[in-house]
Parts: sequence; structure tokens; C-alpha cells
Amino acid sequence: MNHEDWVRQELRELSKSLGFRYTPLKEIENRLTSTRTAMKKHDIEALLVVQKMNFYYLSGTTQDGLLFVPLEGKPLLMIKRELERAKVESPIKDIVALKSNREVPLLIQTHCGRLPNSLGLELDILPVRDYFKFQELFQNIKFMDASPFLRETRGIKSPFEIDLMKIAGEIGKKVYKEAKKILKKGMTEIEFGGLLEATAKKYGHEGLLRVRSLNYEAYTWHVLSGLTGGIVSQSDSPMGGLGLSPAFPVGASRRSMRAHEPILVDFGTCYHGYQADETRMFSIGKMKQKFIDAYNACKEIHDTVLEETRPGADCEAIFLKTLQLAEKLGYKDSYLGPPGLQTHFIAHGIGMELNELPFIAQGQSYPLKKGMTFAVEPKIVFPGEGSVGLENTVVVTRDGYEILTPVEQEIFQV
Amino acid sequence: MNHEDWVRQELRELSKSLGFRYTPLKEIENRLTSTRTAMKKHDIEALLVVQKMNFYYLSGTTQDGLLFVPLEGKPLLMIKRELERAKVESPIKDIVALKSNREVPLLIQTHCGRLPNSLGLELDILPVRDYFKFQELFQNIKFMDASPFLRETRGIKSPFEIDLMKIAGEIGKKVYKEAKKILKKGMTEIEFGGLLEATAKKYGHEGLLRVRSLNYEAYTWHVLSGLTGGIVSQSDSPMGGLGLSPAFPVGASRRSMRAHEPILVDFGTCYHGYQADETRMFSIGKMKQKFIDAYNACKEIHDTVLEETRPGADCEAIFLKTLQLAEKLGYKDSYLGPPGLQTHFIAHGIGMELNELPFIAQGQSYPLKKGMTFAVEPKIVFPGEGSVGLENTVVVTRDGYEILTPVEQEIFQV
Repeated sequence: MNHEDWVRQELRELSKSLGFRYTPLKEIENRLTSTRTAMKKHDIEALLVVQKMNFYYLSGTTQDGLLFVPLEGKPLLMIKRELERAKVESPIKDIVALKSNREVPLLIQTHCGRLPNSLGLELDILPVRDYFKFQELFQNIKFMDASPFLRETRGIKSPFEIDLMKIAGEIGKKVYKEAKKILKKGMTEIEFGGLLEATAKKYGHEGLLRVRSLNYEAYTWHVLSGLTGGIVSQSDSPMGGLGLSPAFPVGASRRSMRAHEPILVDFGTCYHGYQADETRMFSIGKMKQKFIDAYNACKEIHDTVLEETRPGADCEAIFLKTLQLAEKLGYKDSYLGPPGLQTHFIAHGIGMELNELPFIAQGQSYPLKKGMTFAVEPKIVFPGEGSVGLENTVVVTRDGYEILTPVEQEIFQV
Repeated sequence: MNHEDWVRQELRELSKSLGFRYTPLKEIENRLTSTRTAMKKHDIEALLVVQKMNFYYLSGTTQDGLLFVPLEGKPLLMIKRELERAKVESPIKDIVALKSNREVPLLIQTHCGRLPNSLGLELDILPVRDYFKFQELFQNIKFMDASPFLRETRGIKSPFEIDLMKIAGEIGKKVYKEAKKILKKGMTEIEFGGLLEATAKKYGHEGLLRVRSLNYEAYTWHVLSGLTGGIVSQSDSPMGGLGLSPAFPVGASRRSMRAHEPILVDFGTCYHGYQADETRMFSIGKMKQKFIDAYNACKEIHDTVLEETRPGADCEAIFLKTLQLAEKLGYKDSYLGPPGLQTHFIAHGIGMELNELPFIAQGQSYPLKKGMTFAVEPKIVFPGEGSVGLENTVVVTRDGYEILTPVEQEIFQV
């Protein structure tokens, strides 16, 4: 059978029967409208979207290709592989085959009647070599950086997006519920992390977490027990853990977990590209009192952030308030990392990437807005001993917040 | 306790007791020597290494930072986070703290007495925005693209690297052995894939596979059953599978696996950053004869590639020979993908990334060299029905090859 025919006849139904949800046309149109408002403001005549998550956001597909978005007129989706599948997945009408980037100017010319005078590219992530090639292809066209406003646009989530994040949160809930049955004394951190991940996949988690960065790698198996919880590593995180080797020096290690020590499980899930992030504490037998006290402090800080969460609240002001509270509670030197290595954020925006806007952090003085989603994660770190933390993903609502990760907040003791 | 003191006193021993292997000084020195030979040839005075895998290759650590390699004189490792840990992990002597990239020119000046006239950067992957910032920081310095020769240098593996890949291969062997016990009728592809991954992690697999690309994402759960094995997707692969959503439209899906259909498991493992990649076929009950025949053809093609493998053999010539053989065996239209969507490679280089040199492929006319490592993967695809394949990772030896993935090559029937 011909592959194209099979895709045209069978793929949509098979995908839907196996849980695929396609982005509706109306949703894509709304996103394009927001994007174009920003383009107009920045005086950009057209966008050429390359990076997979922006591409998915504006087209509904992640097939390999490029998306051209003119300020006026219809977007053009150019697909390298696989064209027929992109036609099933994307509600965009104009979808054409692309063999090589060399064809892009001609395809745009044919689609629009002319080339734009200015073109927005994702300069935060586009490799230099690709940029040089685009310069050759689009001579006399002014390139501009579209990434800041694409980031801002994506920072406000629609009900459709929030719904996907809620499902990611529900997957997380199922994982934590089963985790209590999985955790055993003597099991290694990575063994536990691997089984949690397998459980999440069974319930629809997509396996990969994503972060917008050249070098930063996201992962789900952030299981730290006792002293590995006190180790800072490469990541901009209160603690990174030991990891598995110098090539992956973060997250779970091959250490066997012991009774009474804090076991921190920071676990992200992803559903249809949308992520939820949460942290809970586990222990085998009762956790030492020092860590229980620190966990309660994290809970108080977590609750304080949520009390302050509403449209208009200033991100930096919330962060500074948590610093004061941590000091008052006696954790000045262990809040968000050990002295000299403390991080300066209490929450990171989250959606398709783990480092979206907003950041509730030092130097981030801007207001929260309705539809913003972030993961709030107070953590307290004791080098050589361990760490504790609590994390939930929330959405800013009209007059407050809603938690998207509905897992009970007690310590999971087995 | 102070984090720095804890790291200095405890980290090395803890890491080693949990399986960490540090890159020896001699190994780093050899790699620097090869790199400098290439720098000299390309008339580059110094390198500034940014990307994590090149950074690890030349320093032995993946802590967050930049590596400066002058043509003559000592390399300088500048670390943002975490400095003390980098000192434990890297055999490089000159390791300094880096707060911001703005300090880089001054640190280099202090280290070398002057700034270089030309600087090699990894333009294949460095984001444009970072490049512009480097242009501001290093005025009057000529930037050159170091990525092609770094890629070539990394294309020849040392005995140390091959040893790590062998361990990755041994992990894969254990996974396939347990896979027969895990696979059950009615289980979904992703459930099976998730449990294989958990098994691999238990034995030391690092969880992430890496590929050098902006958009291409590597993953381990490439489990395709029956008709999902016939679906082509975004990846440059004979078949991509259905995947879990339009945001991750490759690999395992939520389809329940059935009796007698081909179940293709393409599973990569990673140990200390080094990967092994292999594919085996599974079936629940006996696989339909059509697929058994196609599998035997894959095996014949696989063996033919290995017969040709030795230093000096031309990569494109080997590829073309497999095309002829596939045609002779009756698989002209299904070899490496369905008609119109057939890929043009039979093997990809592998090491720390899944798209290293060499490619045994159309248009890749260059000789194999001793120490090159690649994954050879003949696959045959029937749209709407399924696919079969066989894959092993091998190293080119003095007079032939050695297989690094010692898994039995029969169909795993349960």
C-alpha cells in the first residue's frame, strides 16, 4: 500500500482512537492573532518559525519543516517530512512540500506574491550556521529577533492549553499514588526514578521534558536521597544531585536509599507537549525531625507565594517576601541552596518548556497576568545531609490561582 | 557544613563508589593534541567550546561553563556552576570561576597574556544571540567555524571511549534479555518501552540519548507494533511510528500489541555519555512469514555491510551495494522506507551523539577509518502493515570490525 494513501485514509482515526488531540483551528487562529499583534508592535512584516515548540504552538504539528507567518494574509507551512501527516495534524490550510531550505524564498514568493522587507527569526536558539544560510537566501531582507515576543505570547495560556496541563497534572497524581507501592528500602535512586517514569508513560506521559536552551537538559528522574540531595551541580537549581556519571551529573544516582532519610522526588510529566512539574517528599520509616521541620517551612513559603498569586502581583516582590519568610523561619543559609550557591528564583514559568515566563525571582519585576502558569518550588538544602522541597504547578486565574498538580501535600512515608 | 568543603572532601569517593569513571588526564591530552592538529591546519589560534558534548570531550566535565583552548599553552576551564565539582571531575589544571560571559575576555587575557587573533566557535549549534554577544566581547577577533573539525576529531574513538560504548552495549544486552519476560499480549507499546527504559536505567543507562541538532530529539522508547511500524514521521528514519501525540509523533504509541505481528524495538543505551544503539524484533506467538522473510533480508544486508567494514572502505560504495542487494532480494520499494519516503543511509556514526561521523549513505564518499563507530540498521517497511529491522553498533578495527552490542540476533518470540 502507498504510504500517502494510508495516511490520508487511516491516520486520523487511528491517532484519535489512541488518544491524540489535535489543536483546533480556532485555537491556532487566536495564537496567530496574538503573535501578529506583537509583530505589528515590533514592526516585523513576517516570521519564519524554525524551533519545534514555537512551530507546534503556531501550527499544531511537529513534523519537520518551517512555518512562514506574514503580518497579513495566510500562513504557509512548508514540510520536509512527513507532508501527508502534517496535513492531518495541522489545521493550517496552505501546506506544501519542502525539499531543501533553498526553496523557501520561492515558496514564499509564490504564496504571497512578494518577499517581506523584514523577517523575524528565533535568534535565542537558531544556530549561527543556519542564520548565515538564511542571510544568503534572503538578501536585502532585515532580520529581527522574534524570540522575546514569541516568548511573551506563549507566556499566557489559553483554556485549551491549561486543559492539557491539567491532564499532565493528573498523570503526575497517578504516578505519586503508585510511587508509595514502588519505593522499597535498598532500591537505588535511579531504579525508583526509572519505575516512576515507566508508570507515567503508561498513563500518557510523553517521556521527554523540554527546556529552551542549548545545553540545559530536562529529565524526569530527579530522585535525591539523603546526602545526594545536598549536592549542587550544573543546573540552575537549589540542588542537582549526584547523577549517574560526569556526563550526566544531575538527578538520580545509583545510591541505595535508606530508612529515615529525606527522599526528594521532583517529577515532571508531559501531555501533548504541555508539562506539569511537582515535587514531593518520601521517606522509608519516619523522616528525621530536622527535615520534617524544613519541609513544613517549605510548605509555609509555598502557601505564601500562592496567597500572593493574582493578576497584577509583582513577581520580584513575591520572591523577596519569601526570602524574608525563610529568614524568619531560620533557613536563611539553606533556602534555595547552600550559602554562596543559592539560586534566586522561587518559581519558573512552565508550559511546553520548563523555562517559560514568568519567573518569580530576583530582578524580575513585572506583574503576573491571568493565564500565566508557573511551578513554585521552595527547597531547603543541607550539604552532606539532604534536602527537602515542595512544588506545584499553578495557573493564575481572574482573582487568584488554581493548582494543576492535585497531589496530596503530606510526606509520603512507606 | 559548607558545600565547597563537602565536595572537596567527599565527592570523589562517593562518586567512584557509585560507578563514576573520570576521564584520565592522558585521554584529555590526546584529544587536545588531535584537536590542535586540526586547529593548526585550519589556521585557528584558539577555541571557545560551548556545547556540552564537545565540552565534556575536551574537559571531562559537563558542569556549566566555557572551555578555552589555545593552540599553544594550557587550556582554561571557566565554570559557572558548580566550580568545586568541576575541579573533581576534570583533569584540567586551570579551572576558574565564571560569573558572566562578560568576564571571559579578561580571564583569557589573564591566562594567556593576550587575546587570540582568531577564535573557533561551534557555529553548527551556537545560537545567533550568543554569537552576537561574543562579537561584542571579542572585537577585532576573527570568528571561525570549529564544528566541522571537532566533529572529525570526535569521529575517531579512543580505546577509552570504545570501552564505555561496550559497557553501554552490555546494558542493552541485559535489557533485551529481560524484555522477553516483560512483553505481554495486550500491553501498549509505550508501556513496554517505558519498562525497557526502567530496566536499562537500573543497569546504568543514563536515560537521555543525544543528537546534535536544534530540533531532532532522541529517545529510547522506539517500540513499533504492526501497522504503527509502517508509519513515517518527522525523523530521518525509515519509519517513525505513531508516537503519543502531535507534540511527540514518533516512537511508541498507546496501541496494544497483538499476536503474530512484528514488534520492532530500536533501543539506545548511554553510559558515561557514550551510546550504543541496537534493534531487535519481537513477536507474541510466531511472526507472520512475510515479516520473517523481510527480517532475514535485513540480516543479509546487515552482514554484507559488516563484511565490507574495514579501514579504507568507501562509505557510499557500501551503501550502494546494499541498495543492489535489497533490490535483488525483492525489497526495492520497501528498503529503508516506503516509495518516495525512503531514507538514504544504512548506518550512522555514533558516540556521544547519534548523528556523528561516519554515515554509510548516499553522497558520503569517504573512507572508513580505524576507531570509527557506527550503528548499521537495515529496515524494511510495509505501510499499513508493519516493519522489521536489525541494528548493531560496531567499531572499525585494524582489519575489520567488532560488534559492541552483543545481543543474539534471532527474533525474540514470546
